[in-house]
Amino acid sequence: MLTPYRMDTNSLYLTEQLNLLGIEVIFKSIVGDNLPRIVAAAQHALFRSDILIFVGGLGPTEDDLTREAVAEALGVKLQRDPEIVRLLEERFASRGWKMTPNNAKQADLIEGATVLPNANGTAPGQWLSGQFDGREHMIVLLPGPPHEMRALFENEVQERLRAKIPPAFLATRTLRVAMLGESLVDARVSPIYKRFSDVETTILAGAGEIELHFRSRATTQEAAQRRVDEVAGSVEDELEDAVYSRNGESLEQIVGYWLQMRNATLAVAESCTGGLLAERVTSISGSSRYFLGGAVVYSNQLKTELAGVPAEMIERHGAVSREVAAALAEGIRYRCESTLGVGITGVAGPSGGTAEKPVGLVFHAVASDAGTEVVQRNFPGDRKRIRRFASTMALDMIRKKLM
Amino acid sequence: MLTPYRMDTNSLYLTEQLNLLGIEVIFKSIVGDNLPRIVAAAQHALFRSDILIFVGGLGPTEDDLTREAVAEALGVKLQRDPEIVRLLEERFASRGWKMTPNNAKQADLIEGATVLPNANGTAPGQWLSGQFDGREHMIVLLPGPPHEMRALFENEVQERLRAKIPPAFLATRTLRVAMLGESLVDARVSPIYKRFSDVETTILAGAGEIELHFRSRATTQEAAQRRVDEVAGSVEDELEDAVYSRNGESLEQIVGYWLQMRNATLAVAESCTGGLLAERVTSISGSSRYFLGGAVVYSNQLKTELAGVPAEMIERHGAVSREVAAALAEGIRYRCESTLGVGITGVAGPSGGTAEKPVGLVFHAVASDAGTEVVQRNFPGDRKRIRRFASTMALDMIRKKLM
Repeated sequence: MLTPYRMDTNSLYLTEQLNLLGIEVIFKSIVGDNLPRIVAAAQHALFRSDILIFVGGLGPTEDDLTREAVAEALGVKLQRDPEIVRLLEERFASRGWKMTPNNAKQADLIEGATVLPNANGTAPGQWLSGQFDGREHMIVLLPGPPHEMRALFENEVQERLRAKIPPAFLATRTLRVAMLGESLVDARVSPIYKRFSDVETTILAGAGEIELHFRSRATTQEAAQRRVDEVAGSVEDELEDAVYSRNGESLEQIVGYWLQMRNATLAVAESCTGGLLAERVTSISGSSRYFLGGAVVYSNQLKTELAGVPAEMIERHGAVSREVAAALAEGIRYRCESTLGVGITGVAGPSGGTAEKPVGLVFHAVASDAGTEVVQRNFPGDRKRIRRFASTMALDMIRKKLM
Repeated sequence: MLTPYRMDTNSLYLTEQLNLLGIEVIFKSIVGDNLPRIVAAAQHALFRSDILIFVGGLGPTEDDLTREAVAEALGVKLQRDPEIVRLLEERFASRGWKMTPNNAKQADLIEGATVLPNANGTAPGQWLSGQFDGREHMIVLLPGPPHEMRALFENEVQERLRAKIPPAFLATRTLRVAMLGESLVDARVSPIYKRFSDVETTILAGAGEIELHFRSRATTQEAAQRRVDEVAGSVEDELEDAVYSRNGESLEQIVGYWLQMRNATLAVAESCTGGLLAERVTSISGSSRYFLGGAVVYSNQLKTELAGVPAEMIERHGAVSREVAAALAEGIRYRCESTLGVGITGVAGPSGGTAEKPVGLVFHAVASDAGTEVVQRNFPGDRKRIRRFASTMALDMIRKKLM
């Protein structure tokens, strides 16, 4: 975790889980495989916090030092547990392997610790609670691989923490908003959430999508829920149908819900997004119920061949044009016999832009029984961001067409 | 950064930059907007490290406490710099706004600090070097938004650090490997990299792709480069053509290089990957030179309609079959008049699996003048992972066909 390569996702998961228990995370430390440094970090944490969670460093190699370091910081001994050694040997034997001696260190228990069995790996977790540094502490050691860490937290740690800490009630709500700028959203909703000083509001922005997270703590679950519902409700009233999701569902899921609710089917013809829209729609399990398929038409010839766009229309207006977007949507709808047809054509860049048709210019079309709607946008950013924006715009147009 | 939402990318960037200067990162702390906690973290860091970099908390709000906290930890004063106040006022005036009083705190300089101008935002950075806590330190304050932080680091910090620290030479190499299991790769290459104890090796695994990072430090650039080249060369000899990239290029880029080198074109027909293969191919700028387009054929009718798969073949063998994969590849190649045609059909799950055709079963086909190759695989994992595996397999088959 001290290399430039690995993104820290474990601590985000743990923060979410701890917050749900009413526990606030006030400090995260990332320290290397170095005994005195881990000991110092553990001592500092003991002084600072009531609950300490150590993740990683429980494996069989020389670099795995968390057990030794925590024992030293607490001033207690490590003791090898013969029962864990036996279970480790069994685990190896069941695979037809002989256990190498270095594995036995995974059976070293910090004095006073309870073993937390690890169903997904060799290194068990450990749980301690008691007086350390003159104060009551809870101390947890978890393995580093995310699937092991998560399973152990859910099966072994959650209930132990809940039993020890005063009940606190946390309620959360997430609203998602499409195709409005972050500064515009903030300007419109900040007068609202500022009135709710007891609700914590976080705004996260991606390409074309904004998430508003609300969290409230109170003495009862009902009171906490009421506060997040109040602020979320006021924000919804302000942003109206730009809010596509009230409980954290993705735009892809919401589009799927609407298509199924309307008993409608979808087909798409994409140029600059190169399959991204189809990929996002089909990322949802069960999307075959409403998504028929589509065409990725990079060459002009294929725009004609697969989506039926007249060659002379491309000649006259250019491949990136309002007319071709509409023809893509109508052509793929006709071809696939779908309820809705979508066409996207634009300049994703970084090359290929002109003064008249700059990088970021995209035309989006949705064809239905009621006719064809075309929307033109100029998106900022690099190729990846422009393609993401364009596919989000198309998903949002589908959603609004079905509402 | 103490919420469950935000991924820490700033520290990865800084780690990479510092490593390139020969500076090792030994500790990262994430602390909330709380004055005593930031002061304690700063004091602890002073005791532990020679170089301290603080990121974030330099803005105009009450929560922005880094300046105050660092000054307190160092035992020095903050002084408001009239020149920075003037520049802030100018910046606001140039946008036609009046500066609100809270902005002035961004002009508070830690005694002895040099201002690091921020071209991309209001909050300037600060640089201090000197004796603190009885020892020579370098202390840097940078703004939190990634584009501001990066520009400031590159323009203002890099050279100042380089001038102060003894020269160290670091060389890196990255090899990428497709479609071999992580444990298999590690078993084959660990005897090699263990012989190079002076080279740091990191192995990262994704769905179907493995990265091997090698880093070496030496007293000259040549010596460092020689060592990473030696270990990378030996690993390449061991893994042969499974290594698709010798300098960190992505599989999508490499496939693009080969297609251009062979003057070849590509068309794809995807079922279970739903456009992901096309999306990955077209994520590369300039891919229109070799990618013609393709079909996303979720429904059986479209497999026939767009990719020319005979309906009776689907009836007889099922949509997920060796025969249909080959027919998709051949059909789309014929339809698009491309050099290579690719077909993918499988069960991405989580639903739709049967005893005979379980979730994870995928057929991949590449059609060319020389005939059609079909590869069957059973991938583990969830829908997202299976789709990623299948698209990587197809990209790797294209690469090998062109080698």
